[in-house]
Amino acid sequence: MPALIPTGYQGEIVYLGRVSEEGELASHPVDRLELGFAGAEGELHSGLTRPACSRVTAQHPKGTEIANVRQLTILSEEELAETAFAMRIPQLLPEWVGASIVLRGIPDLTHLPPSSRLQGPDGATLVVDMENQACVLPGRFIEGIQPGAGPRYKPAAQGRRGVTAWVERPGVLEPGQALRLHIPGQRVWAHLHEALR
Amino acid sequence: MPALIPTGYQGEIVYLGRVSEEGELASHPVDRLELGFAGAEGELHSGLTRPACSRVTAQHPKGTEIANVRQLTILSEEELAETAFAMRIPQLLPEWVGASIVLRGIPDLTHLPPSSRLQGPDGATLVVDMENQACVLPGRFIEGIQPGAGPRYKPAAQGRRGVTAWVERPGVLEPGQALRLHIPGQRVWAHLHEALR
Repeated sequence: MPALIPTGYQGEIVYLGRVSEEGELASHPVDRLELGFAGAEGELHSGLTRPACSRVTAQHPKGTEIANVRQLTILSEEELAETAFAMRIPQLLPEWVGASIVLRGIPDLTHLPPSSRLQGPDGATLVVDMENQACVLPGRFIEGIQPGAGPRYKPAAQGRRGVTAWVERPGVLEPGQALRLHIPGQRVWAHLHEALR
Repeated sequence: MPALIPTGYQGEIVYLGRVSEEGELASHPVDRLELGFAGAEGELHSGLTRPACSRVTAQHPKGTEIANVRQLTILSEEELAETAFAMRIPQLLPEWVGASIVLRGIPDLTHLPPSSRLQGPDGATLVVDMENQACVLPGRFIEGIQPGAGPRYKPAAQGRRGVTAWVERPGVLEPGQALRLHIPGQRVWAHLHEALR
């Protein structure tokens, strides 16, 4: 078995977006994403490296220059709908949570195996780093659009917040394209369940 | 739970090596590895990018420029000993299989969760891409040292070949240091077992 195996799972791109301004959380819909090794062109989170942030305080002092494995955030249309349902609002727009890419058709996307690859028709390839964590910031943003619903975001988004990813091979993504899932062809680490306790 | 959680597992560095010449398979022992974002200084496999090789033919045409997630290979002392035992030879030296780093004390190292991190005392951090695959080439090299044993290498090394890794944060590694294991704090993907069938 090769290290990385193609699967039958494909996700259709139903949304592409960019965060373009410093301090901004929301993304803006675009009709294509041009990907280089540093991420999407014109995207605030692009860069081969980035300063360590609060999500990695257990590993690095804040501000340490580290490789940038969160160039992009990928969410699932189905999980966004589940989050909206749990928040008791009619719809949760990808823009509101700063999505770069929303895919339809890959089940349990948030828990994709770390180091999985998603590959587009021109060969553009994204590496999944790992699950993204639900945080309170999108809730504050949503509160301005759906008053009263903001505080319900974080609990509703647990396990549905998608994944962070970065570019292994440059290319161009457009809505309607399918990204094929490739996963590490290896069994689960023998000590995983004990280590996660 | 944060995305990436520190565990109680630490691996002691018992070997550091470099492959320095084009076409060479074996590594040469060194008393320190200086790590930059492109990998170890003076190492043939260093580079932010690399041409796609035979291990990723299911993803990329050979020669395609892709991000380099195999800057280093990390093996376990215990798994090397198991491989030697299965080959019926007294010892399998890390040099013979081109090891960059050999660790003692992390069980089932070859199946560490992809996207795990290994962190040294100065903060140097390696990202585990995934399991390395056993291949015939080290066997051919070993055949020259232990005549008759070469063909037994590949089957004996199945599931014991260690992992490929790359640098998330620069630093210096030296023998005797401990690398702490950090793993993605997420459950197994719901469709993993079916997708691996």
